Amino acid sequence: MANCLVAQSGGPTAVINASLAGVIRANQLNPLYDHVFGGLHGIEGTLEGNLCDLTYLSGRDIEVLKQTPSSALGTCRYKFSEEADFQRLINVMDANNIDTMFYIGGNGSMSTVSTMATWAAEHGVSKRFIGIPKTVDNDLGIMDHCPGFASAAKVACEITHATRMDYDAYTRPEVFVLETMGRDAGWLAASTFMTGDVDLLVLPEVDFRRSIFLEQVRAKMEQQGSCYVVISEGARWYDGTYLSANGKAADGLGHAMLGGTAGRLKSMIVEAGIAPRCVVQDLSRVARSSNFAMSLVDFEEAYDLGVCAHMRSFDPTFTGKVVGILRGATEDGGYNAEFFACDAAQVANYVKRFPTEWILPNYQGITQEAMDYFRPLIQGEPKLICENGIPVTLKPFNRR
Amino acid sequence: MANCLVAQSGGPTAVINASLAGVIRANQLNPLYDHVFGGLHGIEGTLEGNLCDLTYLSGRDIEVLKQTPSSALGTCRYKFSEEADFQRLINVMDANNIDTMFYIGGNGSMSTVSTMATWAAEHGVSKRFIGIPKTVDNDLGIMDHCPGFASAAKVACEITHATRMDYDAYTRPEVFVLETMGRDAGWLAASTFMTGDVDLLVLPEVDFRRSIFLEQVRAKMEQQGSCYVVISEGARWYDGTYLSANGKAADGLGHAMLGGTAGRLKSMIVEAGIAPRCVVQDLSRVARSSNFAMSLVDFEEAYDLGVCAHMRSFDPTFTGKVVGILRGATEDGGYNAEFFACDAAQVANYVKRFPTEWILPNYQGITQEAMDYFRPLIQGEPKLICENGIPVTLKPFNRR
Repeated sequence: MANCLVAQSGGPTAVINASLAGVIRANQLNPLYDHVFGGLHGIEGTLEGNLCDLTYLSGRDIEVLKQTPSSALGTCRYKFSEEADFQRLINVMDANNIDTMFYIGGNGSMSTVSTMATWAAEHGVSKRFIGIPKTVDNDLGIMDHCPGFASAAKVACEITHATRMDYDAYTRPEVFVLETMGRDAGWLAASTFMTGDVDLLVLPEVDFRRSIFLEQVRAKMEQQGSCYVVISEGARWYDGTYLSANGKAADGLGHAMLGGTAGRLKSMIVEAGIAPRCVVQDLSRVARSSNFAMSLVDFEEAYDLGVCAHMRSFDPTFTGKVVGILRGATEDGGYNAEFFACDAAQVANYVKRFPTEWILPNYQGITQEAMDYFRPLIQGEPKLICENGIPVTLKPFNRR
Repeated sequence: MANCLVAQSGGPTAVINASLAGVIRANQLNPLYDHVFGGLHGIEGTLEGNLCDLTYLSGRDIEVLKQTPSSALGTCRYKFSEEADFQRLINVMDANNIDTMFYIGGNGSMSTVSTMATWAAEHGVSKRFIGIPKTVDNDLGIMDHCPGFASAAKVACEITHATRMDYDAYTRPEVFVLETMGRDAGWLAASTFMTGDVDLLVLPEVDFRRSIFLEQVRAKMEQQGSCYVVISEGARWYDGTYLSANGKAADGLGHAMLGGTAGRLKSMIVEAGIAPRCVVQDLSRVARSSNFAMSLVDFEEAYDLGVCAHMRSFDPTFTGKVVGILRGATEDGGYNAEFFACDAAQVANYVKRFPTEWILPNYQGITQEAMDYFRPLIQGEPKLICENGIPVTLKPFNRR
């Protein structure tokens, strides 16, 4: 029998470790593989042969791993596309008798899964590559939603509500701007509209028009003396440039480094004389990695998808695939997750943007249909194991 | 029989409404007053006669009020010191047959309580003024700690841990800087050291020395390839100026408007060439008003102090007082809150700073004694009433 490898990639989420826990636990229930190895720091460490053995993690550690936020194996921003890298990966797998790799990640990782599966088939290499989705951006195609998104949305909603109440406690004239992550898709920012606390919503899916936006802020301030704005970091002008971009900094993959979009709005609002003050709150990583407001639905689905990927890999032809969730319904019309798999190529490198037909004009928010989409995803709270007042977490494998 | 008045002042907290709920509930259990009125927007709205009747709040609404963050009555930043204001307040109380005012607030509000009680005595006015403490800054004297602080500390600790894990998932060289509230006292920033995740801690209690700080950042980066810094917004140079101050903006009370302290550190670190990148996370209002990571100890103590203030007011001579908590011990040496009252004058306008004997040199954090002080305060999680995935809150009285 052979071994399998699991690695994590891209930005961490609150539940990416629940998917990892699912793979490990599934192999304890049905040991399709002799060993479950973890690749440290995604493809970057894996290519260096930096692996750890996860096979015998105790039941308690698996429970704690499930509630541990961020990537317990470490992650990377490594551009994996060179022929030389492909061969290096195969060599590492050969050296450790690994025939199957599970890769937990977003569109880029699903591209890696697809590319490697194709490459292996073309080169007569009997290795398999299977994708498990995660992203707080919720921008993967085909599937209904992505693990990691709902917990980030729930944190964002809770903070939106708390900061709105804080804002409303005052009488002084000021505008409040909350910035969320979301480089190319506005799902996370849009989800905050569920709270009923958001007056204006700025998404990357709609070209930003300064004059129209400022007119709306002014109108809200005049009508109600307050204006609470949520903006996605990826908001952009009609020519595609980000509101926040300074045209210089970029991460390892050539993506513009965002953040500061809310600050840009603040300058516009204050310069236009609409309010003397504008408070900015940048959620940034707080939303994506906080485990204290996880969605139970998200938590369980992420774990189940890890189990699902492992179980389906019992079929030797299962490669170049990604598992995912479609939205079904219970008999009484309630939300129900249906698990499926499709070719990773269908998901790879495609950004599913927030539907424009769900966006109200003039930054007024989203439709009821959009809220009906979001609502079931943030339900329930997992019972976290706490010690000394803080949820217990597993020491990351990449730091041991 | 006469009525009583409750008002809230200063920055909101996660549990300031629990104290309000305590006063209301206590009067239902023992109706010392015919009506419990709420003053909207602290002294500011109260002077305008903007009151609401809280006497008959339902049991369910009281439970929801307890878990509602921010100031449900609204708050203010109003400088209350003019003789004319004193008389206006008495007039509003007279007009509503109010003989006792409970004021929930920080040092400034305790000053108001003390001033008004003295003024009433000197002018033969039979009105009473009683303080109930709250502040996330934890800087009130005499008492062991203030309601509101522990929940803010717990949120700050949880976010520290989550963002540290997120930060640790990466291999790229960067420094992380988390900024917390705390204008003059470093309690909140210091509390994050409990997590074991903080490498360097910058508090307002120690003059900031750029060269020493940067040397420590450099050493951490060289030793472990990472450096996680927590800084209080109130950090200052040896001459007393804030790191963040731009010398211009000020709030209604003449306090410098802080925020941006972490950004200042980022510039220093990047300019010194210690790391090419520095990630900044400003907690700001997220820590003070979030109810999803409340401390059960804080939650219950805040409520109990509301009840305590109401109960002790059965003594007609009880005026110019503030209730509070001292630290006692259980038989087995565990934490135990002991309730007491003292003259508000002893607490008024005095800032209890974080003890310098609890601060390790060179930004290395805090002593074990300090952690032993913090630890019991953040224990436990109240079971929140949730609907649609979000904790239910009461619509603020100032927005009805």
